[in-house]
Amino acid sequence: MMSPVIFIFSLLLFSCHAAVQDFCVADLTAPESPAGYACKKPAKVTVADFVYSGLGVAGNTSNIIKAAVTPAFAMQFPGVNGLGISLVRLDLAPGGVVPFHTHPGGSEVLLVIQGAITAAFVSSANNVYLKTLKKGDIMVFPQGLLHFQVNAGGTPAIAYASFSSASPGLQILDYVLFANNLPTPLVAATTFLDIAQIKKLKGVLGGTG
Amino acid sequence: MMSPVIFIFSLLLFSCHAAVQDFCVADLTAPESPAGYACKKPAKVTVADFVYSGLGVAGNTSNIIKAAVTPAFAMQFPGVNGLGISLVRLDLAPGGVVPFHTHPGGSEVLLVIQGAITAAFVSSANNVYLKTLKKGDIMVFPQGLLHFQVNAGGTPAIAYASFSSASPGLQILDYVLFANNLPTPLVAATTFLDIAQIKKLKGVLGGTG
Amino acid sequence: MMSPVIFIFSLLLFSCHAAVQDFCVADLTAPESPAGYACKKPAKVTVADFVYSGLGVAGNTSNIIKAAVTPAFAMQFPGVNGLGISLVRLDLAPGGVVPFHTHPGGSEVLLVIQGAITAAFVSSANNVYLKTLKKGDIMVFPQGLLHFQVNAGGTPAIAYASFSSASPGLQILDYVLFANNLPTPLVAATTFLDIAQIKKLKGVLGGTG
Amino acid sequence: MMSPVIFIFSLLLFSCHAAVQDFCVADLTAPESPAGYACKKPAKVTVADFVYSGLGVAGNTSNIIKAAVTPAFAMQFPGVNGLGISLVRLDLAPGGVVPFHTHPGGSEVLLVIQGAITAAFVSSANNVYLKTLKKGDIMVFPQGLLHFQVNAGGTPAIAYASFSSASPGLQILDYVLFANNLPTPLVAATTFLDIAQIKKLKGVLGGTG
Amino acid sequence: MMSPVIFIFSLLLFSCHAAVQDFCVADLTAPESPAGYACKKPAKVTVADFVYSGLGVAGNTSNIIKAAVTPAFAMQFPGVNGLGISLVRLDLAPGGVVPFHTHPGGSEVLLVIQGAITAAFVSSANNVYLKTLKKGDIMVFPQGLLHFQVNAGGTPAIAYASFSSASPGLQILDYVLFANNLPTPLVAATTFLDIAQIKKLKGVLGGTG
Amino acid sequence: MMSPVIFIFSLLLFSCHAAVQDFCVADLTAPESPAGYACKKPAKVTVADFVYSGLGVAGNTSNIIKAAVTPAFAMQFPGVNGLGISLVRLDLAPGGVVPFHTHPGGSEVLLVIQGAITAAFVSSANNVYLKTLKKGDIMVFPQGLLHFQVNAGGTPAIAYASFSSASPGLQILDYVLFANNLPTPLVAATTFLDIAQIKKLKGVLGGTG
Repeated sequence: MMSPVIFIFSLLLFSCHAAVQDFCVADLTAPESPAGYACKKPAKVTVADFVYSGLGVAGNTSNIIKAAVTPAFAMQFPGVNGLGISLVRLDLAPGGVVPFHTHPGGSEVLLVIQGAITAAFVSSANNVYLKTLKKGDIMVFPQGLLHFQVNAGGTPAIAYASFSSASPGLQILDYVLFANNLPTPLVAATTFLDIAQIKKLKGVLGGTG
Repeated sequence: MMSPVIFIFSLLLFSCHAAVQDFCVADLTAPESPAGYACKKPAKVTVADFVYSGLGVAGNTSNIIKAAVTPAFAMQFPGVNGLGISLVRLDLAPGGVVPFHTHPGGSEVLLVIQGAITAAFVSSANNVYLKTLKKGDIMVFPQGLLHFQVNAGGTPAIAYASFSSASPGLQILDYVLFANNLPTPLVAATTFLDIAQIKKLKGVLGGTG
Repeated sequence: MMSPVIFIFSLLLFSCHAAVQDFCVADLTAPESPAGYACKKPAKVTVADFVYSGLGVAGNTSNIIKAAVTPAFAMQFPGVNGLGISLVRLDLAPGGVVPFHTHPGGSEVLLVIQGAITAAFVSSANNVYLKTLKKGDIMVFPQGLLHFQVNAGGTPAIAYASFSSASPGLQILDYVLFANNLPTPLVAATTFLDIAQIKKLKGVLGGTG
Repeated sequence: MMSPVIFIFSLLLFSCHAAVQDFCVADLTAPESPAGYACKKPAKVTVADFVYSGLGVAGNTSNIIKAAVTPAFAMQFPGVNGLGISLVRLDLAPGGVVPFHTHPGGSEVLLVIQGAITAAFVSSANNVYLKTLKKGDIMVFPQGLLHFQVNAGGTPAIAYASFSSASPGLQILDYVLFANNLPTPLVAATTFLDIAQIKKLKGVLGGTG
Repeated sequence: MMSPVIFIFSLLLFSCHAAVQDFCVADLTAPESPAGYACKKPAKVTVADFVYSGLGVAGNTSNIIKAAVTPAFAMQFPGVNGLGISLVRLDLAPGGVVPFHTHPGGSEVLLVIQGAITAAFVSSANNVYLKTLKKGDIMVFPQGLLHFQVNAGGTPAIAYASFSSASPGLQILDYVLFANNLPTPLVAATTFLDIAQIKKLKGVLGGTG
Repeated sequence: MMSPVIFIFSLLLFSCHAAVQDFCVADLTAPESPAGYACKKPAKVTVADFVYSGLGVAGNTSNIIKAAVTPAFAMQFPGVNGLGISLVRLDLAPGGVVPFHTHPGGSEVLLVIQGAITAAFVSSANNVYLKTLKKGDIMVFPQGLLHFQVNAGGTPAIAYASFSSASPGLQILDYVLFANNLPTPLVAATTFLDIAQIKKLKGVLGGTG
């Protein structure tokens, strides 16, 4: 009978060679490609790259929207790079709101862990899909569509959102309109909002122009 | 020497078998799949399926936005189904505006054919990328990001937009906020707009709630 | 000034045309394609298609593995069809185990909601990535790699797993080896397990041959 | 201790539900989608759908090119539908030639099993990559580039080509130019070939116009 | 009431982190990946990266084909890198021809802006799809198939072609056959063209061998 | 008539620009991306990058499994990088076995060149697809599913496997369970195997813990 050592050596050698594309833990210091971050060398990867504890801590909701969004995208959680998945924790104090926003690069499934949340998205055909979710409910928001979440009860709500991308992006409508240097007349012309309304919210959100 | 007829027959037979996946002209009457419309039978496909004249005619800009958007997506132009590309014609009368909108399913390149157009998109990092384009200029709007186009001169402008999807979708911000039955208090809570402003624009755009 | 009605009509018409590819709610009665289930007609889609309450209920862990896996894949939750995302609820009683398994079609992120779970995956290079996760921790399991989860404490544990596919599949190692009609000699030859061991587990799990 | 039967039942039920997307054996009678053929119902799938014997038989090389191409694309071998892979058998008698051609939908790796084959592809930069392959050699032809294979010895050659698509297509240059109804003046204008040359080859290959 | 400053700071911080995958402007000096060029650092990206004026200038048609092809692929227009879209300007003097060619990496939609153009592609099944396009017409050429365009009138024609790839490639048939060092006997064997014809065109186009 | 030199110069210039994305020969020394290895500079690519002779040599089957697996993945054969295809040679001495394994990143088609091979895969629904293949037969193993191959005759068998990925990976079940440092109690808990069985095979295969 042949030696097991030979078997072990030859197959291990082979599988070592093949292993590098099982995963691609993000090396945040190297140049990105259209497919995501460059890969950390496999030899330096440890289990710590695949585990993240940052979503176990409540976000700080002491702000104007009474809400906190804590991401575990590839930038925060390098282990998901290239795998087409990521998570976010959402804390909503009573009265808390995640204002209208989109994720340009991925679809989302929201899971309510505590409390109740009213959520909606609007389709290209301008249909509103609106629902109040209770603990344990999940709701899907298809890629790129405007949607929001608001606390639907008098108690703090917690939810986790999963995305079909390791870096789905986040574009908050109010920020697009009122928190940058886009000139007020252009905002007015492209939204039909009144100048006074625009100036008021630019004041609140720090926009100029 | 062997007969050419044998060669012709055997290879034609082969290529007939292989041909069906060169293209997938949309059959709009059959159920769709996540990858697009079902394919028309290859035997019924003619050159007319691959040519479209609908973008050669100026759109009617006699409307509130003084603009017209004429699509050649897979629904209007079945030949692009499954090929990851489509076009739109844009007519902008003086003062014309394509209000803030997104395409949830694709990136866009705008090509100005006549006149001048000021266009901008905003990134997830809230940077504004704003430019006035003259005839012959092209500008790219990455997938899913809010953007707009406005006529930048005193003469009619014409542009063509190309998309990286046969069905990129179109979500117009004002329609999302003011032209459906999303309740005014929810719009207010998720945009910070004043109730009066919302009611005013719901009146203009036909929204209820 | 132009009538708002004209604006509303022309743009709504346009966006209706473009809307069908925002999402593709599964029609489970129609033939599937390689990209997923066929799409339900958009006119019949309601918010109920995008919300699922089946993960809010604890699974029954009164079984040999003291665990329950409750899926919200496209088959159970048609709204995720074609969107590259789905969820599963995992209940682990004390001593509960989700035995070695793979998801052939997607990567997974596990989120611990209650209790503690020891989880691991093994790479192609045969490295073990093993960690005990506490409440709030997340861990990623790259696509197609063998992995497991076991309750790491004396109390019931709950977790949710997100997948980068609407139908990631599930292949349980013990089922592959011991719960079908694969002949015992072939199982032995291809696993090096002893015949007696195989026969014992075939007896427990209902395998024949 | 809990009954194994409960465990078996509950998990089998689960995996049955999840199983349909492991594969998508082509149903050639149903409408195609851009992603491939519709799927045969899983309950009707047998091992025969995943095995094909058609490539074990030598093709008939008694023709003008002294070559035979026997495909195992999704149309002939429905088990590969949706899996991004297919094969072809190539028989080349002495003097045999597979004339210049492309596969519009996939890359190819050629494996020589018997004899010697001279093969080449030309890149977009117009570099020629030419090599005579002996038994056991493999050569890759990147997607969509024109390439050919000719018998390089005095004995019959056999090769198998693998493709990165279940339906890569096949476009033979001579057929494009000389075996259809494309008018001779257009062929001349778009190839710079002499009219006499075109008419001669149209005669051989059955082209009209 | 909470301070707006807190809100602004926390959300901006978040969106900055998430922003990097909105786009991937090509850094032409870094190594490429299979998904395209490496990304320029987001902090160095300006609107100039997303706008290109090179297609506004007529190409020089004083050449043997009386035609000019001016690309705006990722190499010339780095803003499209990774976005699956690019453009080309086509100028055709009277009698101008874009000879038979393919784009190995993408489908094309041609838009005629001025004049008339006769275009055709041939499918794997050897069907010819031929049409004379007038101003405003669009025609789609599915990925990888041989096609051509010729000026169909007595006046200069202008067209723009959009592609479903940022780097679709371009392979011109005459260049493949007659403008490199592929030996004449091999060209003859793999095309059935006469030796004299090949030598004549090698002379015109600079081929050797 | 215009000078051919002008034509040649202008079009070659153009095609040089466009050529870089025809292929992406792996540069194994640069950082990987999720889409594969970085690309070697096109100017340094030669035909040798696209040809590989390593599969023409019989693997050494003098080992415990009486089998050898010789890969031509992107790591060994850089020309396939980014092209979604690769090959493996399989040598099976009489009694030879490729034990239960998966390829996490791709589907496989097995082609028997010599001898007879019994192969099987198991689906998520726990159906066994088992067949003895003779010379010339092909069998497809869908992505990520556990499968095996064993010599079915008294003579050496040779087969080639093609994959739908340039780096499909390889995970051998026995290695996962018995050839690393995964603690024996965890292996037992997650496989139901007896402790004695596990310790025995850990001894053979070099596992610890």
